[in-house]
This record gives sequence, structure tokens and C-alpha cells, in this order.
Amino acid sequence: MSRGKVWLIGAGPGDPELLTLKAVRALSEADVVLLDELVNRAVLVHAPRARVVEVGKRGGCKSTPQAFIERLMVRLARAGKIVARLKGGDPFIFGRGGEEMLVLRAAGIDCEIVSGITSGIAASASLGIPVTHRGLAPGAIFVTGHSGGELAPDWAQLARSRMTLVIYMGMTQLPRIVAALREGGLAADTPAAAIQNGTLDGQRSVVATLSTLAQAVTVAGLASPAILVIGDVVSLAAVAREAEPLRRVA
Amino acid sequence: MSRGKVWLIGAGPGDPELLTLKAVRALSEADVVLLDELVNRAVLVHAPRARVVEVGKRGGCKSTPQAFIERLMVRLARAGKIVARLKGGDPFIFGRGGEEMLVLRAAGIDCEIVSGITSGIAASASLGIPVTHRGLAPGAIFVTGHSGGELAPDWAQLARSRMTLVIYMGMTQLPRIVAALREGGLAADTPAAAIQNGTLDGQRSVVATLSTLAQAVTVAGLASPAILVIGDVVSLAAVAREAEPLRRVA
Repeated sequence: MSRGKVWLIGAGPGDPELLTLKAVRALSEADVVLLDELVNRAVLVHAPRARVVEVGKRGGCKSTPQAFIERLMVRLARAGKIVARLKGGDPFIFGRGGEEMLVLRAAGIDCEIVSGITSGIAASASLGIPVTHRGLAPGAIFVTGHSGGELAPDWAQLARSRMTLVIYMGMTQLPRIVAALREGGLAADTPAAAIQNGTLDGQRSVVATLSTLAQAVTVAGLASPAILVIGDVVSLAAVAREAEPLRRVA
Repeated sequence: MSRGKVWLIGAGPGDPELLTLKAVRALSEADVVLLDELVNRAVLVHAPRARVVEVGKRGGCKSTPQAFIERLMVRLARAGKIVARLKGGDPFIFGRGGEEMLVLRAAGIDCEIVSGITSGIAASASLGIPVTHRGLAPGAIFVTGHSGGELAPDWAQLARSRMTLVIYMGMTQLPRIVAALREGGLAADTPAAAIQNGTLDGQRSVVATLSTLAQAVTVAGLASPAILVIGDVVSLAAVAREAEPLRRVA
């Protein structure tokens, strides 16, 4: 029996052309693809001989427990299968790829990471927003809006960082996040954007300010999955996009 | 005469397989490739019909001025050429892609961004380090070590963020950065790594702690270009790598 292996692959932000050549090679070799909900199905064209198992998870919805996915990966690899574990964006940016890597490492299973384009960068770029820019932001902070407990982001501190804030999974907590940033001292007129389905045909977005973002999102009817970008770099969003429906609401 | 265009393309961290399918398509259509120094020449196989112009820039070395590159892009596009402006990593993460986009936009030239895998994420992943991880880091901060003036990072604040710090172009300032983080209260035993030529065959790295990183880098003889990763996630670096020469010095 051949030795099994798991590829932990980032499928990128949505546009199937933003898949890497390495991901394409891994998919072509795969016996089984374990597919997250946020992955564009169009990329499966590169895995013609693989069995596809949907293991999507989404906050609040019916989902496959993480522990089940991890057991399945281990079982398949031990049976000699080449497993492509396909995740949206990058597996190591809010993708729980680290947890899966540790499980595989503990089980002695060969595991290779294939980085993917993370949605925060590509969704912003799709509006002409560079997350770093000389004179506007010395860096960018990638956080998730739905982590809690001891490791929840200190929004007041982030408000004082002068960096671009790129927030994943922040839509349901948007009013709370905005309030915390305002309390931390971030100016009401700080440029801010929300981008749903970034880089996909169905992409929709609003460009507003910190104080108007939540209302703009509501008016436009934007929903998860979406990326929030807050900071002066958002002022560089392409004006040419203004004419497109729902691009700019506020 | 056909209408010119500029693709602003991220070539990824170094491994030519981490190029995206979209970048491959843009390169295949290009008349001219404007190539940064940090881009792996192996990707030029995808641009068989293009003229290649080296416009590399590197801190402290002989370089092509940014203004010259921007004028050249405008002139080529106005002459009807399809221009592939190829940058290491992602054009919008410390890549000056924003500046070039604005010049092209002002000149009325069609410009399309192709996001690339940024080195900070992929170089870390190559050691088995996820830049975000539940229970270890609520997010990641991407900063450059060589920006100064009013927009220089506030290292003391970053030290208190509990987030993973991913530092680009930080090697020449490493002792100063470490001192500032220590002064800000970041523990001396915080895991820290430096990765030179991440994802390339010539990759070299050290995994150490905040207090031993600078010495480990010196002993190993690591140099730019390199990524620094500082934070508890570095404790997840694959122990299997320990046996490789120069992987772990401290």
C-alpha cells in the first residue's frame, strides 16, 4: 500500500484563477478532496480523479465538526490516500490549518502546506485598495471579528495603531466593532469598506467611513462572508468603481 | 494600434509553483515584463514572447529609481504594449504597488492587480508556523522594519498586542527592533524565527526566542531578504526541521 499524505491547501479568495500552480498539482494528484464551504467549486476541475467530500463549516449553520474532519483526514491518509484538504483563502490565516497540521503531525502523517491568497488582501485589491501604502499605513493588522475570550482583539489598541485594519468574519459584530474602534479614538471619518464575495463574479461592496459603514452595509444588504477594511488606504479605492451598482453607498 | 495595459502582478514568495493561474495568463499575454530583483527568474518560462526588463531595487544597492519605472510603464502602455509588472510577494503588501497603481490611474491607463502570495505568510508556513492560531494569536500584524518618520511602527504598542508580528525588511534593524519590543514588555522567551529566501531551494532559517534571535541570525549568517516572525505561534514550528542544517541555531 502506498503511503498516504495530506495537502493542506489554500484555494484563495474565490476567483478560481487565483489558485496557485502548486495547488493545481496537488489537486491533480489527489484521491480525495475535503472541501470547505467557502471554496469555489470551479477549482474542482483540477481534481478530475478525486472523490469530493463536502466538509463545510459556517458560523451558526449546520456544519461538520472539526474533530470529524480531522479524524477523516487521518483515516484516509492511513489508508494510503492522497488527501487534498481545500480551504478558502490561506489555511494559516483564520483557516484552522494550524490545528489540522498539529493533528496530522501527532499522527505521524505526511502533511504539506500550500499557501493561498488570503481574502483580506485580494478583496481589498479588487477595489484598488493596497493594505499597505507609504505615507498612509506602516503596516496592516489581520484580525477576526468573532473571536472572544482572553484572546479577543483589543480594539481600543488597534484604533491607535495607525495601521490598516483587515477584519475577517466581522459582519455580525460590525456595530460592536465600530463602537469599540470609535471609543479607542479612531476618527469617525476614517475611510472604511466592506467587501462580500471578494474577487468572485458576485462581489458586492460598499465604501464609506467608520461612522457610516454599518448603515451602508445594511442599506446595501451585504452579508457574510465579507472582509472589512478600515484605514486611510481605503481612500485609494478606485473612483471608477463608483458607478457600479452597490459599490459605494455612503 | 491596440490599447495598452499594465498588469501589476505578485509573483509570490519565491517558489515558482506559488504563482497563480491568473499571473501565468497575464505573463503569457505580456509584450514586456518589468522584473523586480526579488522575483524568481524561473517564472519567466510563462512569458515566452515578452521582452524582459530588469528594474530591480534593493535598499542600499544600485537600483532603478521608482520614478523611472513608473514613467517606463506609462510609456509602454501608451505605445499599446501589454506590460506585466512583476513584483515579489504581493504588490499591495510593502510592494509599492499602490504608488504604481495611482500613477497609472492618473495617466488613464488600464491597470489590473493580480494578488500574489505574500512572503510573510508563506515563509512562516514553510516552517510549519501558522501566523494565526486559536488560543495563541487572535491575529497577525504585518509591518516593515525599515520605515521611519511619523509612520514608523510603534514597537512598544505592537509588543502589547498579543498578535503574531510578521516583519518584512527587518534584518538590518533587528537589534533595534528586538530592543524596542523588549522595552514594550514582550517577554524575552517569546518564540521568534527568521527565514531567509522563504519557499526557495536556498531557504535558511533559525528558530529562537526574542532575546536570542539576533545572535542566532548572526551565527547562522542569515541576511536579507528575510522575514521575521515573533509570537507564540512560532512554538509550532515543525520539530522535524531541527535536524536540517542551520534550521535551528539557538
